[in-house]
Amino acid sequence: MQVRQLLEKKDKGYIVATCRNPSGATGLLELKNKFPERLDIHPLDLTVESTIEDSVKSIRDKYGSVNLLINASGVLSIPNVLQPETTLTKVQRSSLLLAYDINAVGPILVIKHMWPLLKAGGGSGTDKDFAIVANLSARVGSIGDNALGGWHSYRASKTALNQLTKNVSVEFARKKDPIICILLHPGTVDTDLSQPFQRNVPKEKLFTKEFSVQKLLSIMNNTKRCDNGKFFAWDGQEIPW
Amino acid sequence: MQVRQLLEKKDKGYIVATCRNPSGATGLLELKNKFPERLDIHPLDLTVESTIEDSVKSIRDKYGSVNLLINASGVLSIPNVLQPETTLTKVQRSSLLLAYDINAVGPILVIKHMWPLLKAGGGSGTDKDFAIVANLSARVGSIGDNALGGWHSYRASKTALNQLTKNVSVEFARKKDPIICILLHPGTVDTDLSQPFQRNVPKEKLFTKEFSVQKLLSIMNNTKRCDNGKFFAWDGQEIPW
Repeated sequence: MQVRQLLEKKDKGYIVATCRNPSGATGLLELKNKFPERLDIHPLDLTVESTIEDSVKSIRDKYGSVNLLINASGVLSIPNVLQPETTLTKVQRSSLLLAYDINAVGPILVIKHMWPLLKAGGGSGTDKDFAIVANLSARVGSIGDNALGGWHSYRASKTALNQLTKNVSVEFARKKDPIICILLHPGTVDTDLSQPFQRNVPKEKLFTKEFSVQKLLSIMNNTKRCDNGKFFAWDGQEIPW
Repeated sequence: MQVRQLLEKKDKGYIVATCRNPSGATGLLELKNKFPERLDIHPLDLTVESTIEDSVKSIRDKYGSVNLLINASGVLSIPNVLQPETTLTKVQRSSLLLAYDINAVGPILVIKHMWPLLKAGGGSGTDKDFAIVANLSARVGSIGDNALGGWHSYRASKTALNQLTKNVSVEFARKKDPIICILLHPGTVDTDLSQPFQRNVPKEKLFTKEFSVQKLLSIMNNTKRCDNGKFFAWDGQEIPW
C-alpha cells in the first residue's frame, strides 16, 4: 500500500519494492504494469543477508543513491510455527529467536547495506537535506507503555528494533551523515498480520491500509532533523520507550 | 561473588549455583567445600532448554520451592566469535542472534521453568511475602539513555531482556502471584566480561565484585511489591527504559 501511494501521489521518483517471492506478489505486479518505468521489484529475504546485499547492489548500479528507506516487513504469527504468546508458559526459544531475526535483525542489516546509498542520496531531489530511514515498529514494543503483558516474542523483537534504530541514529548524527532514522507505530491496521487478532479491536481503532499509510507518509513528509531517533504513532504523538 | 556473599552473610538458607561446566568452576568448588550442606552446583547452559529443565527438576525434588532467582549470566564478547560493535558496518546477524539467545532468551526460559517453584516459595522463610526474580541488565540496554551508540548486539539483547522482564512482571501481578521481578544494572564491575573494555572507565567507576554485589543484594533486600517490573542501578536509582 505504501508503494501504491508513493507511486500514485507523486508523478516522479523511482520505487524499489522487495519481497521474498516477487512472482507471487500480485499487488506489486499490477503496480509494475501500471508504472513500468518507476517500479522495480526485487526478491529479498530478511533472514538471508546475501539477498539484501544483492538488492542493494542492483539499486546502487541503477540509481546510485536512495532518499527514503521504509522497513515495513515484520512477523507476528505463522500458523503452526509462531503464535503470539498468551502466557509465559507458552514462550519458546525458537519463537523468540525467529521473531527477533525477522523484526529486529533484518531491518538493521538492510540499513547497514543501504548506508552508503542513503548517504549519497541525502534527500537530493526532495525538499529535505537528509535521507530518511523509517522502521515500522509497534506500540506493544514500548516497555513504558506495557500494561497488558503477553506477545513476548513480538514485543521483545520490536523493543530491540527500537534500541537498534536509536543506536544507528546516534551513529549517523555523530558522523554528521545526512540521514535520519525514525520509528513508526502504524496503529492496528487491517492486514494479514493483524487479521487473526482483530476480534478485540474496536471498529474505530482498526484502520484501513489506506488510512494508516497516508498518516505514516505524512509523518515522513513532515520529518525534521530533530526527529532523528524518535518513535512516533500514526497520529504524530511520540511513544515512550 | 553473589553466591559467596549469600552464603557468608547469612547463616542459613540453601543456594543452587549453575554454570555450564561445574568441574571447572574453581571458585564455586571452593565454596562447596566450605558450605557442603548449603550449596549445590548444577550444570546449566542457557542456550539448551533441557539443561534448565533438569536443574529445575532437581531443585523441585530437593527443596520444593525458591525465594530468590538471580539471572546473572550474560555475554558481551567472545574472542573470535562476538565483539561489541564499534560501528554499524561491523554488525553481523550471527552476533545479534547469539547475544539475544544468551542475554534475553535464556533468562526468560529460566523464569518460565522456575515459575511454579517461585510461586510455591513466595518469600516464605524471609521477611517478605513474595519471591524475587532479579535479572542483571545493563544501563546500555536503556534506549532513553543511549547517547553513545555502538555495542549493537549487547545493547539490543539487554533492551529485549528489559521488555521480557517487564512483560513477565505484568503477568505475575495480574495473576496475583507472590513474585516480583526487577532489573538491575551492576555498574561497570571488574569481571571477565568487562575486562577488555575497562581502558576508558575512570578508576572510581570501576567497581570491585564485592562492592557491586553488596549494593545489588541490598537492593534485593529492600525490595517492595511496588518495585515489580522496575529497573534499578547499583545505587538504587531508577533507569529510564
